[in-house]
Amino acid sequence: MKVLFIGDIVGSLGRDMVFDYLPRMKRKYKPDVVIANGENAASGRGITKAIFDDLLRAGVDVVTMGNHTWDQKEIYDFIDDTDYLIRPANFSDDAPGRGMTSISRNGVTLSIINLHGRTFLPPHGDPFDKAEELIAEAKEVSPLIFVDFHAEATSEKIAMGWHLDGKASVVVGTHTHVQTADERILPGGTAYLSDAGMTGPYDEILGMKKEDVIYRFRTNMPVRFEVPKSGRSQLNGLFVELDDQTGKALQLERVSINDDRPFKG
Amino acid sequence: MKVLFIGDIVGSLGRDMVFDYLPRMKRKYKPDVVIANGENAASGRGITKAIFDDLLRAGVDVVTMGNHTWDQKEIYDFIDDTDYLIRPANFSDDAPGRGMTSISRNGVTLSIINLHGRTFLPPHGDPFDKAEELIAEAKEVSPLIFVDFHAEATSEKIAMGWHLDGKASVVVGTHTHVQTADERILPGGTAYLSDAGMTGPYDEILGMKKEDVIYRFRTNMPVRFEVPKSGRSQLNGLFVELDDQTGKALQLERVSINDDRPFKG
Amino acid sequence: MKVLFIGDIVGSLGRDMVFDYLPRMKRKYKPDVVIANGENAASGRGITKAIFDDLLRAGVDVVTMGNHTWDQKEIYDFIDDTDYLIRPANFSDDAPGRGMTSISRNGVTLSIINLHGRTFLPPHGDPFDKAEELIAEAKEVSPLIFVDFHAEATSEKIAMGWHLDGKASVVVGTHTHVQTADERILPGGTAYLSDAGMTGPYDEILGMKKEDVIYRFRTNMPVRFEVPKSGRSQLNGLFVELDDQTGKALQLERVSINDDRPFKG
Amino acid sequence: MKVLFIGDIVGSLGRDMVFDYLPRMKRKYKPDVVIANGENAASGRGITKAIFDDLLRAGVDVVTMGNHTWDQKEIYDFIDDTDYLIRPANFSDDAPGRGMTSISRNGVTLSIINLHGRTFLPPHGDPFDKAEELIAEAKEVSPLIFVDFHAEATSEKIAMGWHLDGKASVVVGTHTHVQTADERILPGGTAYLSDAGMTGPYDEILGMKKEDVIYRFRTNMPVRFEVPKSGRSQLNGLFVELDDQTGKALQLERVSINDDRPFKG
Ligand SMILES: [Fe+2]
Ligand SMILES: [Fe+2]
Ligand SMILES: [Fe+2]
Ligand SMILES: [Fe+2]
Ligand SMILES: [Fe+2]
Ligand SMILES: [Fe+2]
Ligand SMILES: [Fe+2]
Ligand SMILES: [Fe+2]
Repeated sequence: MKVLFIGDIVGSLGRDMVFDYLPRMKRKYKPDVVIANGENAASGRGITKAIFDDLLRAGVDVVTMGNHTWDQKEIYDFIDDTDYLIRPANFSDDAPGRGMTSISRNGVTLSIINLHGRTFLPPHGDPFDKAEELIAEAKEVSPLIFVDFHAEATSEKIAMGWHLDGKASVVVGTHTHVQTADERILPGGTAYLSDAGMTGPYDEILGMKKEDVIYRFRTNMPVRFEVPKSGRSQLNGLFVELDDQTGKALQLERVSINDDRPFKG
Repeated sequence: MKVLFIGDIVGSLGRDMVFDYLPRMKRKYKPDVVIANGENAASGRGITKAIFDDLLRAGVDVVTMGNHTWDQKEIYDFIDDTDYLIRPANFSDDAPGRGMTSISRNGVTLSIINLHGRTFLPPHGDPFDKAEELIAEAKEVSPLIFVDFHAEATSEKIAMGWHLDGKASVVVGTHTHVQTADERILPGGTAYLSDAGMTGPYDEILGMKKEDVIYRFRTNMPVRFEVPKSGRSQLNGLFVELDDQTGKALQLERVSINDDRPFKG
Repeated sequence: MKVLFIGDIVGSLGRDMVFDYLPRMKRKYKPDVVIANGENAASGRGITKAIFDDLLRAGVDVVTMGNHTWDQKEIYDFIDDTDYLIRPANFSDDAPGRGMTSISRNGVTLSIINLHGRTFLPPHGDPFDKAEELIAEAKEVSPLIFVDFHAEATSEKIAMGWHLDGKASVVVGTHTHVQTADERILPGGTAYLSDAGMTGPYDEILGMKKEDVIYRFRTNMPVRFEVPKSGRSQLNGLFVELDDQTGKALQLERVSINDDRPFKG
Repeated sequence: MKVLFIGDIVGSLGRDMVFDYLPRMKRKYKPDVVIANGENAASGRGITKAIFDDLLRAGVDVVTMGNHTWDQKEIYDFIDDTDYLIRPANFSDDAPGRGMTSISRNGVTLSIINLHGRTFLPPHGDPFDKAEELIAEAKEVSPLIFVDFHAEATSEKIAMGWHLDGKASVVVGTHTHVQTADERILPGGTAYLSDAGMTGPYDEILGMKKEDVIYRFRTNMPVRFEVPKSGRSQLNGLFVELDDQTGKALQLERVSINDDRPFKG
């Protein structure tokens, strides 16, 4: 099974990139499943029903989330009605929605798990325990398991990679909005990348207007960060191919599209 | 001028990688200056005089540091006696050593500045102000300026990149020990990479034994992290070429050497 | 000179306590100057012009602030027009307003300084340096100096107390909203209290509805904290008497008014 | 049942205060049970077997701990052999020792629970859930339940107080080393105090040499904090009387002994 993952989609520029390039990427990579992190899809803050529907229309199969899950209040109204939008599984038992879903293509099932880090972040439930618990559940159905670990610290992300090596098919990080260059297949067969990077503005800071972010770092004064609606943009993600029998990764390739790295079809 | 930068050297495996590959990299890249971050060179914690001398012998010209600067107490004895070891410039005025140095090759001078981030880190002096102050000073001598920004958060690092675009020749991040894939020349001519990555153990977590790090994440119990002395290793860094007249970056290339990406001479 | 300080006023219940009890406290303590921290006066978030004017009308002479200074945007419009509203002095040079003011009574001048901590808080300017700088300036006029140090960690607050012992007349902490019981006159003559406590709801958590705060701790889900407008309330603060010649503290007394500790006139 | 609690004992000066004043406090308060937080008893860092035995000899019945639990490695050797030393119950299941114990006097049993906060602290298990779980267990035996909640943030501590109001007999905070003045009996009958304060050096910062702590705040340079062995000292704690039938608090009184507040027998 071939899986294409698109990192944190930020605002309208990010959504436009998905609309523009996902068809071309489908032609190139022929993914069976497309997963995208949508926690910043609505102007940088959460996701709405309309935007979620748009992403599905654009060709995304499953949307994962992160710390911005609840930024748009309307998510409470639709998260429990769809199988294709998941939020970190180690959120509170009180949280609506769920943290794992699955999708089948040609008789092969892929489970998708979303987890949240705790370093420099709130004390959610233990993501390492939760990963083990959900993977055990998923293994009942299929050995193909994809994990989006939304976390800040490289140490916690790599720890999760090694922790799940041989248990998950893919462990890819999100949240820092910068793609890392450490993609590899770990000895146990797990495809690993610390961060997939973001999809949205290319000349700003994590998708937010750079002048505002710099002003805040320099002054510690309150600034409302805005996501620009025009300007150059980028798309970042990861492509992996998995063995349908064992769930082990056969190959992985970072995806990075921007003016400095034009898409090659 | 051509500059080769080597990311955080961790322990003896990291030093061995420098000894093994720096000669070959010199043949390939023909750098005029070699800079390396040595904050973890001594078993992951700081640097000693013997190790500093070793790095110079291995072909490094200037060593930069970070949050681990003072881990080996003997640094207090020699940091003020050399021009080739700098620590973050925005450390306290009470700190020994200094945060900027320069080196000349064939009549061209490169200033090297080390700065420290403040997000998820202690409240050192303002790195944005300090950068401006030191760059103004360096510009008196030469427009070629290299900045190692030792910081955790991608937002702070990218903010520094844009803040110094057109002012510094290179802004490269260190500290997360994971190389990022976002290298680019910003519109003003500054070569930028969020993190150069580390140089040391390849199958561990940031250079520390993975079992220990995972155990700490899973239990929050105290563990003394050890840097393994055997096993596979990696080297990560950045190569840049600068215009001798303007100081602007002409090209940049990430350097990454490990068993999955063997060195190509 | 006698000085009465009222800790963080939270919402309308807090303002009501000031209106109700300040006249009676004036009768009891006969303060020459009344200072109050008003960073939460407007529904827990900042201060408005109308509320600032109300506090002056209620008998407050000088209002100090903290991390919530900018929560109400209208403060930008009036902070530079009054001598009786100060914000932390170690905020950015770009911040409107100022961090020190003074007030004279019967020929005796008291300088009031507001500072902000950096432990578990953003990296503002160094409060220890800023304190020394402003105190040197204030000493030109008068040895009577009152410091409101808005900070979280007890270590940082006590460090400031000892740092300023013999230099400031009073160092009182704010921000934790819980009064501490460590009031004392330090050997150099500085009246010290780690935190003055808050003024507002008595049966909630730091002035916010307790159900909401508990829910957030238990779930890490987003909750908008509300400040109740009804229910029992409390007033906390500090009374000090200073030597007019030397500025040294002669006596200090914690002030705490609530249903368990009714006001005794 | 009468219970006397002594806040964080720091170093030899702290232990000496217990030896000197516990006999006199026993005469005054006639406690049935004496509990003390001993996480800093060994030079500020953890506890040894010899010191634990000393505290029992001095008249302490049960010792609680906190973030410094494991600082002295020998605790691993004896924590599982005694019923009178507990560590935070929401530590990892992998941690030795346990988080609840009980003690009986004249047919009345008191359960003692130790919990750890998570705000500004590592992501231990959920202390709110763990409190409920252990209280349910304890209630099987007796309604008298004492909770030492070792935490930093006033918000988290007060939240625990209200969360356990009517469930625990006493919720007292430790860790900040500064006694708060907010003691009260909550409406449900729970005696509450945000922090009991520390027992040890009186003229230092949280028990550590003040010059060192100030130097670190001013420079962010590494300093090894030392606990002085001479100088003036203090003892802080809490006395409560509980109803033997209902477990509800009948009265509470802060205990604070130092040169400014001499012990009155
Ligand atoms: Fe994101
Ligand atoms: Fe995120
Ligand atoms: Fe490092
Ligand atoms: Fe570092
Ligand atoms: Fe505050
Ligand atoms: Fe406040
Ligand atoms: Fe302690
Ligand atoms: Fe503690």
